[in-house]
Amino acid sequence: MNQPTPPSPSTRGPADHDIRDQIVAAAKEHFSQYGYAKTTVSDLAKAIGFSKAYIYKFFDSKQAIGEAICAGCLARIVEAVEEAISEEGLSSTERFRRLVKTLITTGIDLFFNDRKLYDIAAFSASERWPSSQVYDGRIKQFVVQVVREGRESGEFERKTPLDETVEAIHLTLRPFVNPLLLQYSLDHAEVAPTLTANLILRSLMP
Amino acid sequence: MNQPTPPSPSTRGPADHDIRDQIVAAAKEHFSQYGYAKTTVSDLAKAIGFSKAYIYKFFDSKQAIGEAICAGCLARIVEAVEEAISEEGLSSTERFRRLVKTLITTGIDLFFNDRKLYDIAAFSASERWPSSQVYDGRIKQFVVQVVREGRESGEFERKTPLDETVEAIHLTLRPFVNPLLLQYSLDHAEVAPTLTANLILRSLMP
Repeated sequence: MNQPTPPSPSTRGPADHDIRDQIVAAAKEHFSQYGYAKTTVSDLAKAIGFSKAYIYKFFDSKQAIGEAICAGCLARIVEAVEEAISEEGLSSTERFRRLVKTLITTGIDLFFNDRKLYDIAAFSASERWPSSQVYDGRIKQFVVQVVREGRESGEFERKTPLDETVEAIHLTLRPFVNPLLLQYSLDHAEVAPTLTANLILRSLMP
Repeated sequence: MNQPTPPSPSTRGPADHDIRDQIVAAAKEHFSQYGYAKTTVSDLAKAIGFSKAYIYKFFDSKQAIGEAICAGCLARIVEAVEEAISEEGLSSTERFRRLVKTLITTGIDLFFNDRKLYDIAAFSASERWPSSQVYDGRIKQFVVQVVREGRESGEFERKTPLDETVEAIHLTLRPFVNPLLLQYSLDHAEVAPTLTANLILRSLMP
């Protein structure tokens, strides 16, 4: 990250990134073990050895800490997708396949290697936390990018309004983008990337 | 229904449909009010005025009663879809649109006009009860039927293996077919029928 992150409304106190990071890391550890719902800010304070008041200098609430963890998890999926689709010399078809595959496999890896952290992500999706809204928006941007490029190169059809195409694809990918749905989509994780990508690609043919 | 239903392994005692129906109706009423999870067979027996032993003459377990309720709910969706797509003189495109629209709107109506009954359906999906497996299979059969007809009439493409096309469509419809996912798909219930049907129909173009 080269650019400084703009302060979020839930950020308080000095921009002491080290201490913030330390709180987030300890909270992640703690939530992983005891779950998000069952942990209070007092528990966290005790575990880290800070006072509760000191933690509140950096985070407004437990949700703000959860948000930071969640944003970190989701940012890793976004990074993986970005890397997979930005390789030079790929066709838009191949780029789209990579988008779908990376999204599904990275999402499943991240969430299901740590069920307790997954709970935070699922909670964040159900409560529409900004972190999950931002994530959803980023995934949609990737879809826009790949579809637009494919239209420009003549690989994809151009008759359907771009907005409609993007909305429909985003809706089709929801079971694997939204953590609440992802938990019920695991049985299909093997076949879904190929089947879903193929169906969408057929729909994009000129 | 003209064909007799083969006896399920959970059916016991005399084929006294009236008494079975009476138990199912009372259970439905009871589950609607108190929820499936919180109701025991003893509670049901008391509410209906039958002995617990008498209920067990007709149903193996609470699940068997839940199954009967669930199968009834899901059969209503299947009937609605069947009626919508079997009208004479429709193009396969129009038949497919009706399939998607009826599936989504009837499912939402049935489940969300009665949250407690919905809980049974969601539970049945998570536990893979036969009723929900049968439902899933019927929906897939409808997809096969419409896609096959569209291929025969030249309206839909024939290059993709039929199995692959059907699997992919079924996967795309899952957020609205599976009650576990449906509860998280309500925000999209307005736009999904059209967007999803259009995307799939574009993928079916010859």
